[in-house]
Amino acid sequence: MAITSTIPRSVEWKETYISLLDQQKLPHTTEFLELKELQEVWDAIKQLKVRGAPAIGITAAFGLALHTSSLTVETLEDFQIRLKEARDYLTNSRPTAVNLVWAVDRLVKRVEHAKSINEAKTNLIHEAIQIQIEDEEVCRQIGENALPLFKKGDQVMTICNAGSIATARYGTALSPFYLAKEKGKELKVFACETRPVLQGARLTAWELMQADVDVTLITDNMAAHTIKEKGIKAIIVGADRIAQNGDTANKIGTFNLAILAKAFQIPFYVAAPLSTFDFTIQSGKEIPIEERDRAEVITINGHKIAPEDVKVYNPAFDVTPNRYITGIITEKRVLQGNLTEEIAKLKTESSTVN
Amino acid sequence: MAITSTIPRSVEWKETYISLLDQQKLPHTTEFLELKELQEVWDAIKQLKVRGAPAIGITAAFGLALHTSSLTVETLEDFQIRLKEARDYLTNSRPTAVNLVWAVDRLVKRVEHAKSINEAKTNLIHEAIQIQIEDEEVCRQIGENALPLFKKGDQVMTICNAGSIATARYGTALSPFYLAKEKGKELKVFACETRPVLQGARLTAWELMQADVDVTLITDNMAAHTIKEKGIKAIIVGADRIAQNGDTANKIGTFNLAILAKAFQIPFYVAAPLSTFDFTIQSGKEIPIEERDRAEVITINGHKIAPEDVKVYNPAFDVTPNRYITGIITEKRVLQGNLTEEIAKLKTESSTVN
Repeated sequence: MAITSTIPRSVEWKETYISLLDQQKLPHTTEFLELKELQEVWDAIKQLKVRGAPAIGITAAFGLALHTSSLTVETLEDFQIRLKEARDYLTNSRPTAVNLVWAVDRLVKRVEHAKSINEAKTNLIHEAIQIQIEDEEVCRQIGENALPLFKKGDQVMTICNAGSIATARYGTALSPFYLAKEKGKELKVFACETRPVLQGARLTAWELMQADVDVTLITDNMAAHTIKEKGIKAIIVGADRIAQNGDTANKIGTFNLAILAKAFQIPFYVAAPLSTFDFTIQSGKEIPIEERDRAEVITINGHKIAPEDVKVYNPAFDVTPNRYITGIITEKRVLQGNLTEEIAKLKTESSTVN
Repeated sequence: MAITSTIPRSVEWKETYISLLDQQKLPHTTEFLELKELQEVWDAIKQLKVRGAPAIGITAAFGLALHTSSLTVETLEDFQIRLKEARDYLTNSRPTAVNLVWAVDRLVKRVEHAKSINEAKTNLIHEAIQIQIEDEEVCRQIGENALPLFKKGDQVMTICNAGSIATARYGTALSPFYLAKEKGKELKVFACETRPVLQGARLTAWELMQADVDVTLITDNMAAHTIKEKGIKAIIVGADRIAQNGDTANKIGTFNLAILAKAFQIPFYVAAPLSTFDFTIQSGKEIPIEERDRAEVITINGHKIAPEDVKVYNPAFDVTPNRYITGIITEKRVLQGNLTEEIAKLKTESSTVN
């Protein structure tokens, strides 16, 4: 199990500071920031030094716990006021990040009945660490559930970075590759570079190499030829949002791969925790697709690669219809067959537990 | 028809020099080189300032005609010797470029029975210009044959640059867009950027904009989402080599698009002149796929975008099986249905004519 130490963590609690991997500098520079002040945490989230919804949530929770641990206030009431001020401040860093709000609110709730300032400070730290532990456990369980789907030596394709550095550890789509490595059942990964922002080239290639997982980089348009020539056995991707019927929004390019998987008759898997399911929407038609700045397409690292004034279409995500999805790998189990029914069952079970 | 003047030509005969568009500087700088010496022509071909098999052939023919027009030799025999030396020198610039050898050999053959040095000089120039005129006519006819396949306002996707600047004029896959513009039946083009070398972003977007053709740039992995959301009506691509059964080798990413076209039930067209058919091979299995340098994938404009030592797979082409091809648009007609039979017929007809 010694191998786990090389699976990169993007955020760690260090008592007096938060150690944060600067993902903006990857893959050329591996730099860990030491965040001590609340504003540094806010800046790191705002400036995308940390990315991946779970990793952002953990960073915010650590930030809130660290900040409040050094507060010098007279009364518990004042402490609660300052806690909520800090909570509100952090949630302004990235207004749409669901995990961020969820994480800091979980901390606030944990200490709402605290009997002393010291008890509150201690419990805030415990709760923040607990969020990280739980996320790591969820990711690891996704990997465990995914593993039986692959045979030793299988070549598997992925896109974007549903990886260890986007979560507490292990990631979602990348989790089985780390677990396979641990268990000596090594898989080979083909990572699509993932234009326009190149998360595959910059992040997935980097983090798999840290753990000595066999990874080969291709450009996105090489996928069909690679599946055919290299004998790719399966495709696995993460998810940004999954509807009640299994339709899955994920990084642009995911839908392309799902269609290729069907054409080549290889399985197409989505790896995602329960928290990614949106039980309020029936299908992918209800998922709005963010269109991002044209600069992402016409420039790379600040260098223009296309005519300045060309028209550009830059959707950040696409929606893969459920009929293209062989299975959704969650921390509970792998959903297969009628996804609408399977997701409904999962919802019932998890609301019973909670 | 005034609009044709804005369709860019990459090479022009200017009596005392050859005007050559420096395609390496596109799209940021539109610079025409004035080539006067044979070595300048050799350098331009070698350094990829001119690309596209027909454009390379025309440039080499112009280079040979220009060089020999200024030769001062005493005898016709000496002239023929110097002509062949120059021919051999030019063919060394890019050893694998079939059109280059074909073009310069056509010139040499044209004057093998010349009766005077002056006659030879004149005929070499005429033959070189004739090659350009014929290529323009072939490209234009491909466009004419393609036009009935589209309706006014149709949105059509393409990849790489099978364009005007790769040929005498008009191009192959891009030809119908220019003709549609001339005839007031405007089409809208979605150009895939075409990683790793970005011919779509750098060249196709640029040249269509010169002629005021409506073009929108996307990254390659946006194709599926774009077809669905923008209602793409067809995909049209060029070809590097077509086997007897219609299997088509073309720029990497073409096979991806062909699979998407089938999934979305839209037509997938290959536009190519007769000279692209390789009647010596039965299927695409016999086409070797060039693998190019890893630097193309891990760097863009000299800037690293991936870990230095990551494994890379970089096939430059892929082969689209005939069953994915709705039609092959040639200068003779559009081949549809049983492509093996249609190509055999075409072969018989063209050998009867020649």
